[in-house]
Amino acid sequence: MVAQARRATRLRAMSSVFPSPLADPMPQSPVLRAAYRARAAAADLAPLPRSVKDEALLAIADALEVRTKEIVEANAEDVEKARAAGTSETVIDRLTLTPERVRAIAKDVRDVVALPDPVGEVVRGSTLPNGIDLRQVRVPLGVVGIIYEARPNVTVDAAALCLKSGNAVLLRGSSSAYASNTALVRVLRDAVGGAGLPADAVQLVPGESRESVRELMRARGMVDVLIPRGGASLIRTVVEESTVPVIETGTGNCHVYVDAEADIDMAVDILVNSKAQRPSVCNAAETLLVHQDIAAEFLPRALAALAEAGVTVHGCERVLALAEGGPATVVPATVEDWETEYLSYDIAAAVVDSLDAAVRHIRLWSSGHTEAIVTTSQAAARRFTQLVDSTTVAVNASTRFTDGSQFGFGAEIGISTQKLHARGPMGLPELTSTKYIVTGDGHVRGGARPGS
Amino acid sequence: MVAQARRATRLRAMSSVFPSPLADPMPQSPVLRAAYRARAAAADLAPLPRSVKDEALLAIADALEVRTKEIVEANAEDVEKARAAGTSETVIDRLTLTPERVRAIAKDVRDVVALPDPVGEVVRGSTLPNGIDLRQVRVPLGVVGIIYEARPNVTVDAAALCLKSGNAVLLRGSSSAYASNTALVRVLRDAVGGAGLPADAVQLVPGESRESVRELMRARGMVDVLIPRGGASLIRTVVEESTVPVIETGTGNCHVYVDAEADIDMAVDILVNSKAQRPSVCNAAETLLVHQDIAAEFLPRALAALAEAGVTVHGCERVLALAEGGPATVVPATVEDWETEYLSYDIAAAVVDSLDAAVRHIRLWSSGHTEAIVTTSQAAARRFTQLVDSTTVAVNASTRFTDGSQFGFGAEIGISTQKLHARGPMGLPELTSTKYIVTGDGHVRGGARPGS
Repeated sequence: MVAQARRATRLRAMSSVFPSPLADPMPQSPVLRAAYRARAAAADLAPLPRSVKDEALLAIADALEVRTKEIVEANAEDVEKARAAGTSETVIDRLTLTPERVRAIAKDVRDVVALPDPVGEVVRGSTLPNGIDLRQVRVPLGVVGIIYEARPNVTVDAAALCLKSGNAVLLRGSSSAYASNTALVRVLRDAVGGAGLPADAVQLVPGESRESVRELMRARGMVDVLIPRGGASLIRTVVEESTVPVIETGTGNCHVYVDAEADIDMAVDILVNSKAQRPSVCNAAETLLVHQDIAAEFLPRALAALAEAGVTVHGCERVLALAEGGPATVVPATVEDWETEYLSYDIAAAVVDSLDAAVRHIRLWSSGHTEAIVTTSQAAARRFTQLVDSTTVAVNASTRFTDGSQFGFGAEIGISTQKLHARGPMGLPELTSTKYIVTGDGHVRGGARPGS
Repeated sequence: MVAQARRATRLRAMSSVFPSPLADPMPQSPVLRAAYRARAAAADLAPLPRSVKDEALLAIADALEVRTKEIVEANAEDVEKARAAGTSETVIDRLTLTPERVRAIAKDVRDVVALPDPVGEVVRGSTLPNGIDLRQVRVPLGVVGIIYEARPNVTVDAAALCLKSGNAVLLRGSSSAYASNTALVRVLRDAVGGAGLPADAVQLVPGESRESVRELMRARGMVDVLIPRGGASLIRTVVEESTVPVIETGTGNCHVYVDAEADIDMAVDILVNSKAQRPSVCNAAETLLVHQDIAAEFLPRALAALAEAGVTVHGCERVLALAEGGPATVVPATVEDWETEYLSYDIAAAVVDSLDAAVRHIRLWSSGHTEAIVTTSQAAARRFTQLVDSTTVAVNASTRFTDGSQFGFGAEIGISTQKLHARGPMGLPELTSTKYIVTGDGHVRGGARPGS
């Protein structure tokens, strides 16, 4: 019994990394079987050179264009269902795939072909004092799970990025796009298989229930990472319930701080662009902080510009006082406004006593995404960038630049708001891990050699 | 009600990153209060230059030496309790702090002073096509929680590494070392505070119950990472129950594969060293795989050498056959032996048909720590390193080199067996995150500038 108990303990300990073959080797549930197949496919993908993966991506792009009709027809089913269910036109538009949109998706896949392959990059290397060669190289993560809402193009974008970085992907889209995603994945798998790679490099997670998502989240050891892309509620669920490592994306309560020594014209431009150029995305600004020494000069202009852009300002008392006689779109702020990610034409605004007060406010209320300072003072810029801890600190630039394409990554799997593994916009290298290669000539520890 | 529900949703969404100040700003429980204070301390530590942190470390080293008597006396309480409880002498030895050991710990702290500070390193940087300067710089993780068993020196080692990398540390040691750890942390806090840094940079997690550990594990948003160091059961509990990001350390079911074209003398040396130089650690080899073409020549010598080192071999049928008339310390293997991390003078052994068969065995049974190949064939070495996915692949070197000191890191917080954030031996850079600094001249998106 002792031996059995010890074995059971080890089985449990081991299975946190690899599912123990002493357990059922082919799991019963469809989700776990898909994960098992993905893992097998990942083992085959890992050593593939870039040229082979690029051929598969080109095959995908070609197949999307050749089979556009099939894709658009499946999509029409989803759109019809959504209309019948009374879904808003905005959401339906996000769901819709036209032939032009399919062509654009195919072009995006070809753009991924042009990107460098992160796999095999030597991150660091040296020769140790004892003569051993040490190399740290990039390797694929293995099996990447993407849980996403809305737009079916994510199906293809995510698959392309995962394939390029040598990973197998498990896709779990929203049920409203089920027919579209099923058709897209069929096209992807045919192209991948036709190019000589395992078709299981790309799979749709079977099942439409919450239970299948839960199984995916508990498949630690078979799935290497989960990336949820969608609303705060989806992300929170995955973060809290998953035993598979998660990369948390998205929530952006971004701040623009206008310093005492800001260039006012620049500050107005940056403020309006950060808030109103595209309010519904995570890198849009949600709070304006203004140094008290510049408030009287800056706020009237800023409020007018924001009003012209259709933005409602939720202001603290000092903002309201300076808004007297100004646009009617300035309303009193409550404390909840400081932490609200509006994703709309609304912004919170407060006057602060100092740069340090702005930093304190940010530390208290920010989601850690992006904070911008507008200033002509080198000391202020330096202090702000030192003290603010978010994925991105912008100096005299819009918060809207926090974006993989803008950063020159060529592609983006999402913007991570967590601190481990990846932080900020995530490109291909963030879909990799590393391993060490140690090469000796018979080196052993504790021998006559120094440093053993 | 709708507004309240919306607010509640946002509160929950926001609090996954930052604890909402709209909730109780100073939490009731001692554990969460400690985490709150750690977070405040971390904000003060983050911008500190290396010189200031090094001064604090030197103060710690001095204080340890000056207050050795106090530390050793507290330790004697723990040792007495352990003896009275019938604890084994091996464990008591691990627990014991003598004046020499305290001096050695102080020396280790001075060694950390000599290491480069990872904070502030520019990981990458470029000027974007639109003229924006982009920099990715290393920043501290923030609040690091260490949950550890056994040796009280971990208390000081971990605190020193965290402090050097600008992090505040929350230490949760074992109850058997409670008096020792309490005394050590008192000395550390006095030294840190005396050097002008916040004493809360170093705290012992209050409470001795499982409940306090559980609170620590659920303090996502206040604690940035948890690093469990100890047995498989502790690690598994933390990995499964924590909502705070975890770095999984330790389990090492390491393999030595002796290829058809191995240098037999080298293979015997590497095998014995990997298994028997220090069997109780994670990088000790637990399974030997031998290519069938070399088995007849290699195994008799290997088995004799292992027997001389006091190692019992658990062999497959082909190993047993070749062991006929050899040492009596060769016993039949059961399937559990392939996945067992013995941590003792035992090793599993199998003859495999080919290198690829060895790789398949490793994929099935390994914990992904370290796998070694002994071969004179460049093609075999290349194929093995490409196909094996573990933290470390060793070619013609002992598995025992997977170690931060051996890799030249100067210090090691643990060996990560997971794929995200850190993999393999972890040094100071692994205790950091990064942030982007974007500097423009009033840059906005969607303007006339290209690439906006």
